[in-house]
Amino acid sequence: MLPIISIVGASNSGKTTFLEKLIPELVAKGYKVGAVKHDAHGFEIDREGKDTWRLRRAGAGVVAITSPDQVAWIRRTYAEMSLQEIAARFFWTEDILITEGFKRAHFPKIEVFRSAVEPKPICGQGDNLIALVSDDTVEAQVPRFSFADPRGVAEFVENRYLKDRKKRKMLIQLDGKPMPMNEFVEEFVVGGIKGMLSALRGYDKPRNISIHIRLGEDD
Amino acid sequence: MLPIISIVGASNSGKTTFLEKLIPELVAKGYKVGAVKHDAHGFEIDREGKDTWRLRRAGAGVVAITSPDQVAWIRRTYAEMSLQEIAARFFWTEDILITEGFKRAHFPKIEVFRSAVEPKPICGQGDNLIALVSDDTVEAQVPRFSFADPRGVAEFVENRYLKDRKKRKMLIQLDGKPMPMNEFVEEFVVGGIKGMLSALRGYDKPRNISIHIRLGEDD
Repeated sequence: MLPIISIVGASNSGKTTFLEKLIPELVAKGYKVGAVKHDAHGFEIDREGKDTWRLRRAGAGVVAITSPDQVAWIRRTYAEMSLQEIAARFFWTEDILITEGFKRAHFPKIEVFRSAVEPKPICGQGDNLIALVSDDTVEAQVPRFSFADPRGVAEFVENRYLKDRKKRKMLIQLDGKPMPMNEFVEEFVVGGIKGMLSALRGYDKPRNISIHIRLGEDD
Repeated sequence: MLPIISIVGASNSGKTTFLEKLIPELVAKGYKVGAVKHDAHGFEIDREGKDTWRLRRAGAGVVAITSPDQVAWIRRTYAEMSLQEIAARFFWTEDILITEGFKRAHFPKIEVFRSAVEPKPICGQGDNLIALVSDDTVEAQVPRFSFADPRGVAEFVENRYLKDRKKRKMLIQLDGKPMPMNEFVEEFVVGGIKGMLSALRGYDKPRNISIHIRLGEDD
């Protein structure tokens, strides 16, 4: 799993605007950045009358569209996908995932705070706050950066989450739910899978291995 | 892997319109249908000024947006994703994937043909054509259905691809590329993985197993 950092804050605090400055700083450092936005109110990405819209209206629960230079995908859900599942499924070549919103998830958070918008920061104890971006004088237990210092935030994130990354990472999902696993067991399972696959034709030191298994009723 | 059927035809032959009738017939039979549209000319799904658009413009190569009832995802690509990879990554709970376009992929095809649009069908020998949807008198080596008979096409697809599905399916990707595998080897790898995982806490007869491994340089 790649590191996940959430940019949180009251609505209208300037989260997207700050992200527009932070992402290029991380990209300039050579990292591949993925972004996820949480929209509690629902979003509209598909336009009425477009083919994808027509296919969904006809009853396709999941629709994708591809072209030579991009691919997009829309799925109806009954339960919101977890950030962990989103990260594993959609950000398989990225180095870091920055989210906008997702205050309730347990990932490290950077709060964007303006006292003109909200009397005090929305993150409290137990929210896993790691930094504050604010130009106001506000008491904080964590490092504080100015809105004008996205580079400082990028360096902070790099030092803390990107430089000493554990080299090998595995995520196993059973029916979409992550399977908890300690380091020893991870080592055992990765070793077992590598051992099996490396004996087969076509295995040539990959960096990423993805395995999808659909079991039958008699399995 | 789930079965993949491509609806192909000249532009303006009525592919989307026919899909709008075929999908509900498959849904009515109880199948979960996914759809993929191929757009050779590029598509525009993100609107200028929207937050997702702003995050992509800032340099995020992959952007996702989630809400309680849907999730969407957009990725820039340098090489178009294969249908096989799209199917495994994005359609993990669907029973069948219907594509619009993708004439060049090797999956079974149903051509939508109107002589008012094109003098003759675009699929020839070696195109893996399995049926023709046309109201014109046209010679064909495959079953022909009228535009008014989407139910007939749904039954044809069901009998041929959905009733006798192999119960267990696996896809392994190394750096995004599918690893070829015969049935014996598949049996061996699935057995090995099931054997390892079933010994661990949290394993409780899942229907789907997904494993994502990122290997380090010393692996």
